[in-house]
Amino acid sequence: MTLNPADCAIHTRTNLPWSLRECCERYAEAGLGGVSVWRDAYERIGIEEAARIVKGSGLRVPALVRGGFFVALSEGDRRIAIDENLRAIDEASALGAEMVVLVVGARPGVPLADARSMVIAGVGAIAERAQETGVRLAIEPLHPMYAADKSCVSTCADARRVCERIGNQAIGVAVDVYHTWWDADLPTEIARLGEAGRLFGFHVCDWRVETRHMLTDRGLMGDGVIDIPAIRGLMSDAGFSGMIEVEIFSDQYWAMDQAEYLSLILDRLRTHT
Amino acid sequence: MTLNPADCAIHTRTNLPWSLRECCERYAEAGLGGVSVWRDAYERIGIEEAARIVKGSGLRVPALVRGGFFVALSEGDRRIAIDENLRAIDEASALGAEMVVLVVGARPGVPLADARSMVIAGVGAIAERAQETGVRLAIEPLHPMYAADKSCVSTCADARRVCERIGNQAIGVAVDVYHTWWDADLPTEIARLGEAGRLFGFHVCDWRVETRHMLTDRGLMGDGVIDIPAIRGLMSDAGFSGMIEVEIFSDQYWAMDQAEYLSLILDRLRTHT
Repeated sequence: MTLNPADCAIHTRTNLPWSLRECCERYAEAGLGGVSVWRDAYERIGIEEAARIVKGSGLRVPALVRGGFFVALSEGDRRIAIDENLRAIDEASALGAEMVVLVVGARPGVPLADARSMVIAGVGAIAERAQETGVRLAIEPLHPMYAADKSCVSTCADARRVCERIGNQAIGVAVDVYHTWWDADLPTEIARLGEAGRLFGFHVCDWRVETRHMLTDRGLMGDGVIDIPAIRGLMSDAGFSGMIEVEIFSDQYWAMDQAEYLSLILDRLRTHT
Repeated sequence: MTLNPADCAIHTRTNLPWSLRECCERYAEAGLGGVSVWRDAYERIGIEEAARIVKGSGLRVPALVRGGFFVALSEGDRRIAIDENLRAIDEASALGAEMVVLVVGARPGVPLADARSMVIAGVGAIAERAQETGVRLAIEPLHPMYAADKSCVSTCADARRVCERIGNQAIGVAVDVYHTWWDADLPTEIARLGEAGRLFGFHVCDWRVETRHMLTDRGLMGDGVIDIPAIRGLMSDAGFSGMIEVEIFSDQYWAMDQAEYLSLILDRLRTHT
């Protein structure tokens, strides 16, 4: 089923060389329906100006990216992380963002089981504020290759278990094909999350067979091996009706003319998503 | 509990610059109990000479490394892979190796579900020969970052499911800390495999936080974040009594004086394993 660009959003980080204003103008011109805003995109201009730009563009904001990083060695540092997440929720509310994506954290020196407990405590501590402001929290499982320092939540099952432990319905999951495509349990886990009303986000990109860098070599849809339409089908069958978000970190594509790159993204949304 | 080197083996690939003869002599001198032999280690000298060297050293051979690679686009290529695995079993038998480690395969263009079916068919096709010769087959789940082109079996649960589908008790699992440490289900899966009598192998190395290369930057025990003693405890609690095998692919360590490196491995077996 061909995608309508109006059902799609792009993460500002995807077009890193562009300012927030350029992203919003170009995405709107291209007929895209939304923009997912990274917090660094308004670091210099501030949240009020960012909100004016985003609202002026008429784009939806499926996600503010990103909160999380709840795993720290000291209680004080964990408290700081929670405060930072409360700020992120308030900023999401100011921008009209529908969810905050959470990269939950991990840290050398903290055993994974302890890290997962800190994540449950951290997400639990911010859930009420999210619910009050109407901003949802989407836990994004990250690929196991990031389990040492970025996310002790590596699979949809891990993320589901965090949601179940906390209970609050403001908490769900963002499924990114890059992080989850390899998982034999992905079809059943997507179905379970859908039934539980916890499928909040869907991120697309691709996995290049010869990955040159673990952080900045994601592929554009069609560059790699992921059967994205199949996963989109699973999401749809599970009742997901949110926007499809393009999130790509790539030295190769950041070096391109960004307007040409945006055209290419739109092509690949049509042909490989 | 301090390790006795006599309970440990090293994979020839770990000391890549050394010949099979050098590996065997040095490992025996160092008081190690075994050597796991990679097939490329006797490519030039042939299996008979390799068997003479290994048997002359008095070392045990926990594993021949490696068979597998059952995933291919054509029926003909899958048949070739099966023949190659039957040869590997015969070579293991000639060397007195206790198991053949299977890296099951994956291939761009073959959906993961199809790949897993090919693996079940492939392992199933060689199980009887393994049983007849008394050589066990150890499926090694590989880290999900290798799911595109090396292994569609990414977790202990995936490997267990293959074992259960085939049934034959000559088939089990090799648990490598590098590939599995991140998995929240690792403790329960190791216990299940132990109960089923399918814990055949245990490989150690470490995960470096800043991994510089996805294939050739494994850490020596203690270089990274894996709590190896904890996983060794899980293996032991599950009834595993096989050798502990050191398997490290590392440009950094291959560039070292290999005798010094061997001393370092022995130190780390004592202090970080």
